[in-house]
Order: sequence, then structure tokens, then C-alpha cells
Amino acid sequence: MENGPQVVMSLGELNRFLDEQFPQVAGEFSVTEVAPMRLVTKAHVADKHLRPGGTVSGPTMFALADVSVYLAILAMIGPKALAVTTNCAIDFMRKPAAATDLHAETRILKLGKVLAVGDVLIWSEGDTRPVARASLTYSIPPDR
Amino acid sequence: MENGPQVVMSLGELNRFLDEQFPQVAGEFSVTEVAPMRLVTKAHVADKHLRPGGTVSGPTMFALADVSVYLAILAMIGPKALAVTTNCAIDFMRKPAAATDLHAETRILKLGKVLAVGDVLIWSEGDTRPVARASLTYSIPPDR
Amino acid sequence: MENGPQVVMSLGELNRFLDEQFPQVAGEFSVTEVAPMRLVTKAHVADKHLRPGGTVSGPTMFALADVSVYLAILAMIGPKALAVTTNCAIDFMRKPAAATDLHAETRILKLGKVLAVGDVLIWSEGDTRPVARASLTYSIPPDR
Amino acid sequence: MENGPQVVMSLGELNRFLDEQFPQVAGEFSVTEVAPMRLVTKAHVADKHLRPGGTVSGPTMFALADVSVYLAILAMIGPKALAVTTNCAIDFMRKPAAATDLHAETRILKLGKVLAVGDVLIWSEGDTRPVARASLTYSIPPDR
Repeated sequence: MENGPQVVMSLGELNRFLDEQFPQVAGEFSVTEVAPMRLVTKAHVADKHLRPGGTVSGPTMFALADVSVYLAILAMIGPKALAVTTNCAIDFMRKPAAATDLHAETRILKLGKVLAVGDVLIWSEGDTRPVARASLTYSIPPDR
Repeated sequence: MENGPQVVMSLGELNRFLDEQFPQVAGEFSVTEVAPMRLVTKAHVADKHLRPGGTVSGPTMFALADVSVYLAILAMIGPKALAVTTNCAIDFMRKPAAATDLHAETRILKLGKVLAVGDVLIWSEGDTRPVARASLTYSIPPDR
Repeated sequence: MENGPQVVMSLGELNRFLDEQFPQVAGEFSVTEVAPMRLVTKAHVADKHLRPGGTVSGPTMFALADVSVYLAILAMIGPKALAVTTNCAIDFMRKPAAATDLHAETRILKLGKVLAVGDVLIWSEGDTRPVARASLTYSIPPDR
Repeated sequence: MENGPQVVMSLGELNRFLDEQFPQVAGEFSVTEVAPMRLVTKAHVADKHLRPGGTVSGPTMFALADVSVYLAILAMIGPKALAVTTNCAIDFMRKPAAATDLHAETRILKLGKVLAVGDVLIWSEGDTRPVARASLTYSIPPDR
């Protein structure tokens, strides 16, 4: 039996929170799986995410990694927090498949009172080799 | 007299290149100064770059840092190269001013045959404290 | 049956290579497991690795991550290459246990002709929570 | 007249603090200049810092960057704080000169109540091209 930290937001709650709080990116990202300290997300790739040759842009992958760690943290601590990204290190390892959705698998490695750290692997749909990896730190405000 | 590497693209050429090669972000970023191994850029902040509270989003700052180092490299090696970002480390240090343009100052620290490294400081217009810093590595294809 | 890239150096060969090529750190680190694109290493913590309070120093954890990715690459491409670290991002997430050995688990995420990328999780012996994570890029010289 | 934050530890106090608090690295590093939000340090390179070919090791450069940002923070907030590194991103850009001392110039970019961020450029003595750059985040404990 699992006695570690538990998820406090469901898949539906996470996706509703995303659409309501981030209307600028509504429809671009969605959560497809949630588990304690883990989250899987999807980027619905459209024309505006592409670069010459059809490849998905770096900022789109950064945005996917950023929102993924944010939602993985909220899944554990609830939607009240105004966590902010303090740091991201991202490696772009392969060219994403042209005009293809991306999947991201996120692990929360530390969930402290002040700082949370997660890492993310990103794949193009239909290919098992990661196109990017990222690690992010979020600062969690004291008033939660 | 300066005998180091010289700029091979003018301000006008860099801005035209940006608009033609990256129509998805046309009008969002522009180059305002160029010098050997240095470049200053501006992000013309609009609604789509904002997060709740009017703050400029992390992906916008990442995109600004990424395009800035890219253009600073091209200013030195010319527009032929298809350089790709391999790595970025970015620190978000302060909340950007609400709905305010950003400026980025870029230094190229290494311009090798295979890899180039630059770093970037980002400010909100009208404030001298940096809101973000980033360092990026670009891989330069051998066929240039 | 596994048809991906295979290990070309055994555990014994990796440890001998480490002792012979890096006499300055002989006895400080050892490889305890090797598999395709994966490696487990150990830091034999001694007085010189400690900081006030008995905690293992940051540079010791950096050195462990660095040598781990290096050896994980050599396990796949052989001992000839003079790969050099071009980049490391490391997060220190918890204070390591006082005066306790560290274990590191390394994954190679990209093994290209020019660049290789790996990430590392580090634990104190006897505790399952990671104390640090790191990602590193190595440049692989063309003459291999 | 400068009305920003002022230095609260002198060069002598910083070097004494370093020797007393970090006896494991006594004599390896020293502070050579201090100013508000800026610090210059030196690594006294010896055999134990070298790798095959006489080059200074990556962990030595990491340690120099780490101690430099630490001391630059203490110069501003005093010796009481037990600040800890939470994150470092480091780029190794050129091979350091063989068996030659290193100099590091550090800027504090953010000095907040909870987090401080600094960046560092490292040179081999007698060469103006940077061999490495690093950015580090320190967590500052609340009880200061």
C-alpha cells in the first residue's frame, strides 16, 4: 500500500484548471495521465508551433516542459498555489517529427515547502527516442 | 583598432532575416543593436505573451533568449547556417513589469567551429534590474 | 531480443580505465553496474569530500555526475575517445546523509556522432530520496 | 553616489572566513577583489586539480564557481548565513591552459530574501578568452 504523498487533483480538474487559468494557451496542452509525483501531458501541435521544415519550435517544447512540471506540482498540492518557475535547464537532443504532437512525462523529484524540482522527457508521437529533456525548479509561495 | 571577429550582417539584414525565416513570430521580436559578439533585442509584448496578472510568460522570455543568441551568432557567421539550439539554462529572477516590452542583451562567449555559447540578460523596459538570465549552446552544422 | 546499441566495455574494464586514466581520483569512484545506455556508480566518501556538519560537498556530487556520464558513454563507444564535458546542469535537492557513500544512476538519452547527453540521479546509501540530479552534455571528438 | 546594497565583509574577512569554514579546500581558492554585487576569485591550481594533459579538471572549475558565488553573497549579507547551492548550470567552453591558475569574476544578479542568483566567468591566467561560465542559485535560510 502506497503511503507516500497522494494526488489531490484529478485529470479532469487539472485540465479544467489549465483551460481557465491559461486562456492564452487553451487547447495547446492537455494532461493525459496523473499519478503521485508523475504526470503525462500532450502538446497539440499546430502551425504556430512550427519552424521552417515543419519542426516543432524550441519555445513550444519549453512551454510544454514548464506547464507539465507546474501541473505535476499542483496535482500534489492543489490549485491554490501561485508557484513560479525559478529555473529551467533544457537539452534539445533530436529534431521533433514534422507537424506531430509531443508527449511529455514528468517526475517530481523534490516537493519541499519552498522549492519543488521536476524533470521531463519529451517525445514525438510514434517515436520512442526522446527529443528533449528538461529540469525545472518552482518556488512555492509561503502562504499556501 | 579591433582585430577580432567582425559583424557580417547589419541591423537591417538581421531584422529582415528574422521576419522572412520566422513568419510565426513576425513582429514579436526585433534587433535594436549589433556589435562584434554582442546583440541587443526587444520583445514587443502583446496579449498572447501574458499570464494572469499581466506578467510576461516564461516561454516568451525563453523565446526571446533563444532568438537573441541565434541572431548574435548569425551576425558573426552570416545567414546561411542552420544552427540549432542544443541546450538552454534560464533563471527567472523577478516578475517582469505588467504588459511592458522586454530588452535582451546578448554576449557570444564562444564561437567555435561546432558549438557556440552565448548568454543573455533580460530587462523590462524602464527598470534596470534583470528579470531573467539565460545561457544557450548552439550546434553549428559542418557544411557552413 | 535486444537489438539496440550494446555495451563494449565490462565492469572490470571500466574500473581499470578509471583508475589508470584518473589517478587523481583513484579510489574515490567506482562502477557497480553497467548495461546498454545505463550505468550505476558509487562515490566512496572520505573526509576530503565533506563540508561543515559532515555533509558531502557539491563539487563531490558534480564530480560523481561528471565521471558517471563519461563512463556510461565510454561503455558504449569504447575507451579510445577523448570526450569532454561541454555543459552540466545540476540541482541539489536535499542534504546528503553525513559521511555516507553516494550512489548514482546514469541514463544516456542521446548518443550522437558529435554530442552525447546523459542524466544522473544521486542518492545517499540507505535513503531512497534523491539528493541531486544532473544532466550533462559531452562533445565526442570526430577522430574516433 | 552609490545608494545600492553595500559590501559588509572586507577582502581579509572573506579570505579568513574561507580558510576557517572550509579547511578541506584551504589554500586552493582566494578572493582578490570585492565590490557591491561583484567578486573576483582565484584558484591556485595544483597537481590534484589536473587531468591527463595538464588541463584543469571540471570539478575544480565547478568548485571555483560555487565558492565564488557563495562568497559574493556573504560579502553582501555577512558571514552568519548558511546559504546552500540549489542549482548550477555550467558551460565548459575551452580547455584551460595547462597547470595555470584560474581567475573567476562573479556578478550577483539577484539577492532576494529566499533565493540569490549569480553568474561567473572563468579565465586561465594570461588569456582573455573565458574557459567556462556558470550560473548558480543559492537558497538563503529564513533565520538570517
